[in-house]
Amino acid sequence: MDKRRLESFSDGVIAIIITIMVLEMKAPHGYDLVSLKPVLPVFISYLLSFIYIGIYWNNHHHMLHLVREVNGKVLWANIHLLFWLSLIPFVTAWMGENHFAKWPVVLYGFNLLMAGCAYFILSQSLIHLHGKKSSIAAAIGADRKGKLSVLIYAAGIGLCFVHPALGFACYLIVTAIWLVPDKRIEKSIGNKQ
Amino acid sequence: MDKRRLESFSDGVIAIIITIMVLEMKAPHGYDLVSLKPVLPVFISYLLSFIYIGIYWNNHHHMLHLVREVNGKVLWANIHLLFWLSLIPFVTAWMGENHFAKWPVVLYGFNLLMAGCAYFILSQSLIHLHGKKSSIAAAIGADRKGKLSVLIYAAGIGLCFVHPALGFACYLIVTAIWLVPDKRIEKSIGNKQ
Amino acid sequence: MDKRRLESFSDGVIAIIITIMVLEMKAPHGYDLVSLKPVLPVFISYLLSFIYIGIYWNNHHHMLHLVREVNGKVLWANIHLLFWLSLIPFVTAWMGENHFAKWPVVLYGFNLLMAGCAYFILSQSLIHLHGKKSSIAAAIGADRKGKLSVLIYAAGIGLCFVHPALGFACYLIVTAIWLVPDKRIEKSIGNKQ
Amino acid sequence: MDKRRLESFSDGVIAIIITIMVLEMKAPHGYDLVSLKPVLPVFISYLLSFIYIGIYWNNHHHMLHLVREVNGKVLWANIHLLFWLSLIPFVTAWMGENHFAKWPVVLYGFNLLMAGCAYFILSQSLIHLHGKKSSIAAAIGADRKGKLSVLIYAAGIGLCFVHPALGFACYLIVTAIWLVPDKRIEKSIGNKQ
Repeated sequence: MDKRRLESFSDGVIAIIITIMVLEMKAPHGYDLVSLKPVLPVFISYLLSFIYIGIYWNNHHHMLHLVREVNGKVLWANIHLLFWLSLIPFVTAWMGENHFAKWPVVLYGFNLLMAGCAYFILSQSLIHLHGKKSSIAAAIGADRKGKLSVLIYAAGIGLCFVHPALGFACYLIVTAIWLVPDKRIEKSIGNKQ
Repeated sequence: MDKRRLESFSDGVIAIIITIMVLEMKAPHGYDLVSLKPVLPVFISYLLSFIYIGIYWNNHHHMLHLVREVNGKVLWANIHLLFWLSLIPFVTAWMGENHFAKWPVVLYGFNLLMAGCAYFILSQSLIHLHGKKSSIAAAIGADRKGKLSVLIYAAGIGLCFVHPALGFACYLIVTAIWLVPDKRIEKSIGNKQ
Repeated sequence: MDKRRLESFSDGVIAIIITIMVLEMKAPHGYDLVSLKPVLPVFISYLLSFIYIGIYWNNHHHMLHLVREVNGKVLWANIHLLFWLSLIPFVTAWMGENHFAKWPVVLYGFNLLMAGCAYFILSQSLIHLHGKKSSIAAAIGADRKGKLSVLIYAAGIGLCFVHPALGFACYLIVTAIWLVPDKRIEKSIGNKQ
Repeated sequence: MDKRRLESFSDGVIAIIITIMVLEMKAPHGYDLVSLKPVLPVFISYLLSFIYIGIYWNNHHHMLHLVREVNGKVLWANIHLLFWLSLIPFVTAWMGENHFAKWPVVLYGFNLLMAGCAYFILSQSLIHLHGKKSSIAAAIGADRKGKLSVLIYAAGIGLCFVHPALGFACYLIVTAIWLVPDKRIEKSIGNKQ
């Protein structure tokens, strides 16, 4: 089975997720600069989620680039990932509207954690399908970055109970880790060409 | 006529349907865990619908994979299917907000029933176009799974008048039937390759 | 310049237009069948618009199928068409919520009229680009169906001032005209193959 | 790495942005013509933003047409552009609802300014990747139009403090500049063929 529709469906869903979050940023009723102030936490929340979704799309793009074929398990592992990503607008809105209070930040982290796990499952199902000696298996390798992210998310959720800002800082660290493009896969592509 | 745009349009519509449902899950005003409670039935409703739409996309993907060409009738049979799928966010919201009361569960089942019929019409129009000896006709065959689903939906709608939970259970059974990937088509693809 | 991105962008926009209209159908607060009653005119309005957008997508699909190349003028003629289509959710909601009152039905007709004109401009710009002897020029020909639609829309708008139901009936007539697939283009494709 | 998914993801996001803006145009409660009056500034605001997004899609289409490959930097430069475009529905709604008051017009201009800068960064990252002698570098050249737009946006923001209408006029001038299709790139494509 070919991967084209998997890519185009994922592109569609991710494009919608990244865009409908902005619908939560309601235009304020006042027309002076100060009336934008209540929108600010929602905007910061939106900005972080935009970057996260961007990272997921980017990594998805890189990983699928090495994929030759897909099967039913991969399709469902991908839909599972899209499910967790689809909840991000909800947790983003809750976190932004409550000015980064404890429970919203915990739930946001939990959502990221589950999305991270779903991405790991997807990558493993792709390795399983292509074999341990495939270029995709070589490119993903031990997936230290993916495992590390999940650990930091879990730590961040725990730290929220000390102070939400600590949890939020953990999520930012994961963002920083991933904003660096995945050299392993780019290198693997470079070697093949 | 080629099938590429049919696929990409369907991917677009299905991607939007599966994603805008989350817009019905409004972020609650409170910031503690208990304020999430009223969102729970909406979430369960969303989860079920997400799985349904995922199943439809998956089966659509499998079926279209075997299609060589499309005509005007297929285009309209496909738009007819997309129409019923497009109503799922509405019935999902109504069912979730009313905590699975009788009539919302009936309407939800009716929508699924009509989508099931529309999918059957689409598959028949594809068989009609490709001929009884085509690989798509062989793969779909007697379509027992499709017919069974429609029967269970109808039974579920009837059982709602005894208790909505019985109807809802019927819908879950159909989900379980379809979550198993369609071996017939995967096998047919495997044989051809 | 190739037509692929024009098609995929149009598919995206049309897919979104056809789907977001359902967001106007708010789930009613009651949970019995009678509470669905106020949704009924919105539903009828949605159904008609869904068919219209479906017709446009279908015709767009047929017409672009014969297109070999596009230029800047075609891109803008297409964006112009998408603009008028993008307003259909707005006029649909206004018409549905006001139970097919005079002015909403007039505005709905005006929107359809402008979309019809935009489609005509797009087809003419494609004929201009490909030449009078191209297969697309032959397929579109005198475009009697397109011109007739615009005339019926105009008549419908006028008849609204007698009674909105007469205007609405005119719009339904245009729907019926177009639901028949465009034989000219299918034939032209058939002849070429 | 190939550019196909970059194009399809961008098409998806831009298609959604251009379409969800219409959701801000709420159907008025009255059913006579006069009840449309409050929607008028929102409509004008929507119309302008629709044209802007159309211009961006058009230019993006032209520029990507000359691109042979993409890398991680290009992907992020593109996501950066999409971020600023995704905020346009928000600033459009704020400007329309406040009847083109000073601060909303300033923020609208600032958003356009940032989108203009992001587009410039994207084009530079593409030139950097393809080399100074590539057809894309030749087509973009000194990018006088891009630089001029950014200057006029900045001037427009400043003029808002004299009168918002002056700022708005500046934005209209930029629209006029870009509505003329990018002859440089069309010519470059023409020469190559």
